[in-house]
Amino acid sequence: MYTDKLLLVFMFSALNAQFSQTKYNFETKYIEVPLDHFASIEEPNVFNLRYLINAEYYNGTGPIFIYTGGKGDIFVQAQNTGFMFDIAPIFNALLVFVEHRYYGQSLPFGNDSFSSLKQLKYLSTTQALADFASVSKYLKDIFSEIDDLQPTVVAFGASYSGMLAAWLRMKYPYLVTGTIASSAPMFDFPGLIECDMFYEKITQVYDKNGGEECVEMIKRGWDVITALSKTKIGRGVFSELKICSKIENSKDVEKLLNWLQNIYVNMALANYNYPTNLYTPLPAYPVKVFCNKLTSYYEISNKSFIQHYSRALELYTNYTGNNLCNNINYINEDLTEIAWNYQKCTELIRPRCSTENDMFVTKPWDYEKYAQNCNLRFGVKDIRPEWTILAYGGKNLKYFSNIVFSYGDMDPWSSATVLDNVSDSIFSINIPDATNQLDLRKFDLADNNYVAETRKFHIRTITQWLENDD
Amino acid sequence: MYTDKLLLVFMFSALNAQFSQTKYNFETKYIEVPLDHFASIEEPNVFNLRYLINAEYYNGTGPIFIYTGGKGDIFVQAQNTGFMFDIAPIFNALLVFVEHRYYGQSLPFGNDSFSSLKQLKYLSTTQALADFASVSKYLKDIFSEIDDLQPTVVAFGASYSGMLAAWLRMKYPYLVTGTIASSAPMFDFPGLIECDMFYEKITQVYDKNGGEECVEMIKRGWDVITALSKTKIGRGVFSELKICSKIENSKDVEKLLNWLQNIYVNMALANYNYPTNLYTPLPAYPVKVFCNKLTSYYEISNKSFIQHYSRALELYTNYTGNNLCNNINYINEDLTEIAWNYQKCTELIRPRCSTENDMFVTKPWDYEKYAQNCNLRFGVKDIRPEWTILAYGGKNLKYFSNIVFSYGDMDPWSSATVLDNVSDSIFSINIPDATNQLDLRKFDLADNNYVAETRKFHIRTITQWLENDD
Repeated sequence: MYTDKLLLVFMFSALNAQFSQTKYNFETKYIEVPLDHFASIEEPNVFNLRYLINAEYYNGTGPIFIYTGGKGDIFVQAQNTGFMFDIAPIFNALLVFVEHRYYGQSLPFGNDSFSSLKQLKYLSTTQALADFASVSKYLKDIFSEIDDLQPTVVAFGASYSGMLAAWLRMKYPYLVTGTIASSAPMFDFPGLIECDMFYEKITQVYDKNGGEECVEMIKRGWDVITALSKTKIGRGVFSELKICSKIENSKDVEKLLNWLQNIYVNMALANYNYPTNLYTPLPAYPVKVFCNKLTSYYEISNKSFIQHYSRALELYTNYTGNNLCNNINYINEDLTEIAWNYQKCTELIRPRCSTENDMFVTKPWDYEKYAQNCNLRFGVKDIRPEWTILAYGGKNLKYFSNIVFSYGDMDPWSSATVLDNVSDSIFSINIPDATNQLDLRKFDLADNNYVAETRKFHIRTITQWLENDD
Repeated sequence: MYTDKLLLVFMFSALNAQFSQTKYNFETKYIEVPLDHFASIEEPNVFNLRYLINAEYYNGTGPIFIYTGGKGDIFVQAQNTGFMFDIAPIFNALLVFVEHRYYGQSLPFGNDSFSSLKQLKYLSTTQALADFASVSKYLKDIFSEIDDLQPTVVAFGASYSGMLAAWLRMKYPYLVTGTIASSAPMFDFPGLIECDMFYEKITQVYDKNGGEECVEMIKRGWDVITALSKTKIGRGVFSELKICSKIENSKDVEKLLNWLQNIYVNMALANYNYPTNLYTPLPAYPVKVFCNKLTSYYEISNKSFIQHYSRALELYTNYTGNNLCNNINYINEDLTEIAWNYQKCTELIRPRCSTENDMFVTKPWDYEKYAQNCNLRFGVKDIRPEWTILAYGGKNLKYFSNIVFSYGDMDPWSSATVLDNVSDSIFSINIPDATNQLDLRKFDLADNNYVAETRKFHIRTITQWLENDD
């Protein structure tokens, strides 16, 4: 029923995209939420949670589309979730993007939020969900029509934020009528997936986009770095990689390897069919472009390999040409990364290993060491990988309803998402050739048909949820 | 299909009851649970939760019947939930009674558990539910059959414990297949019920069991006490009531009135068709017996009224004849009552008022004063009556499934329970002439037909749950 209108909306959206880097506008709001939803605590017992609201398309009777913020600043996430803006006019929807506590500007103790467990302990998925539930209830109440009819809430999210959107529907079905969860790694927990699945999927992305040759060159990179790192002269060669700090010891080398691995992961995640600026400015299909550069040239000596490798890497590290040097320490300095690492040390225990089946340096999943590091880093003594599964049911999704899990089959996170339909109201949608959360991004002329079909499915499903909501 | 077997079981159970005060046997166990399920905290971060287990009827493939402990010692609750024992042989069920944290022997900090918010803040329904979920998961795992088939869990509870059993199904449907919730005051929250409903229901119980005359005598009691409390000589007359401490000032009088009101409430709750020992030893139909005593005699003077009133009250205060004096301060001294008052000051905000429509002293619902008292008593600064409704959905039960809400129409708690069927899997069962949680008590020859029918309904429903569980 919405198809004609939809086509117009998409065409208009595409025209806009032709002429400008569209930026969406919001009103920034703050809502006071309990620091601890589940207990009475001494003051301070509240803090301000940020949310962004856009009522441009809202007609006073439409639904509320709520994005449950994940890792990082909510403003960035909102700018990269154009699908919600694209479809808002169809549904006359109110758009709301709620920041996740301990990210962006929603820091309960300001910059001191990460000092110790005393501050950090309120950072948890259950607290975050209670925040989202509180905001949902608050918005339902203030946007109620005169006859007390409350608006329907539909939740959206991608990656971790997609998990939260799904959990919000699962735990608070009386507040949220349905959820579109894109690229949500629902099963990324010990016992639910194999530890090698994530890096194998990444390797597939490079294989599919750059060919076996590219994968081989990346593998060679590790060998060369390992060989060079053994001597002082060798480590000197790393200056070709334009690292801000010197690579002097094995700890530095480990950081360097992690930094590179992270680039390969992010490049796969951002392997969109058009230029983006998600982690860093990148061209369309960066993996393809990178692999073309990397494989265009062979060289025997390790030094000239690194020179060549560095030039290829610049596709990611310096696409704008403005980057003076590469900071490989950022993970320990950035507040977002600290919060995220804390979450990975408490609830989001993600088993990871590399084997001969992927293009990374072989590394087993060492849970004991992982737990030790969490204790060292944050004082976390009770790492409980089973808790999140107990809290949200693991693979037992059939007990719930009204969730669409969509994923690109070239999305690294698809290694841990819902790959099959669960029931007649919990769907899994595979988007061939797509990477991470592509369907929730803005309509683009370069999008393939599969993405278009997925978005139509979302629209049809949301329409049904709204029609059946009483 | 179970009807014949059922009849035999009930008859055997009744025969037993004829000859002895049956006591059920358990193995007492403890399980280490996180003090805070939702956060990483400094040590101590775990404590021992008690549970009772009875495997007499368990055949290795039956379901697990789990009772989610409420206010008080789990042993007492288990002894008063004979229905689970009566039906265990039919289902070959494992019986488990889990104590609620901060009650009985499940005190996280021993007797210091109630010193301040620092200790008390882990006492909440969300934490308690996570405890029950943990125990359910643990039992499912250890009682799994060899082929990894996990046993089905059915939850049982009455009053507050019935709310928890229902919430456990609502929040953890992948762990608990269905819930029998007897006399659960699901709607006992501000905005969901009127404040006068509870005391009106109590008044109905006295009216139905003792007639209008009884209600009038109880009303007269308040007037007499109020009149006497105004002079020293008058207060001297209270010695007839055998209070352990002297009634000297208005605070003492208030305590006396609360103590009496509490007796009337408890007597209504314990108004069973056979003798019980729940709050205190009582005969069958104590309200009837009490009213008979109270109304058998009229006297003009206040002093002789109090003498007579006291003799009638002894039905409750001294049925055994061993009570030397009545302690009206117990609410502040008993650990169970402290824990319960803390819960009433944080999550279980129950609106209460008395009006001219009931038999109690008229008293408005003064939320401000209530909140102030909670602050004074426990340092609770953020009393949030809306939280529990947000957490569990208030009256929006239609989003859930597989719960039976049963209630006696002479049960005080029926004033706040689910009075109508919600859907084709959430039922409400009215038991005429029954009081609090009668259906979950042991079969008794004096039970009326309605109770028998309700129990049969439970058995049929559980049978269906087990048959449909895959």
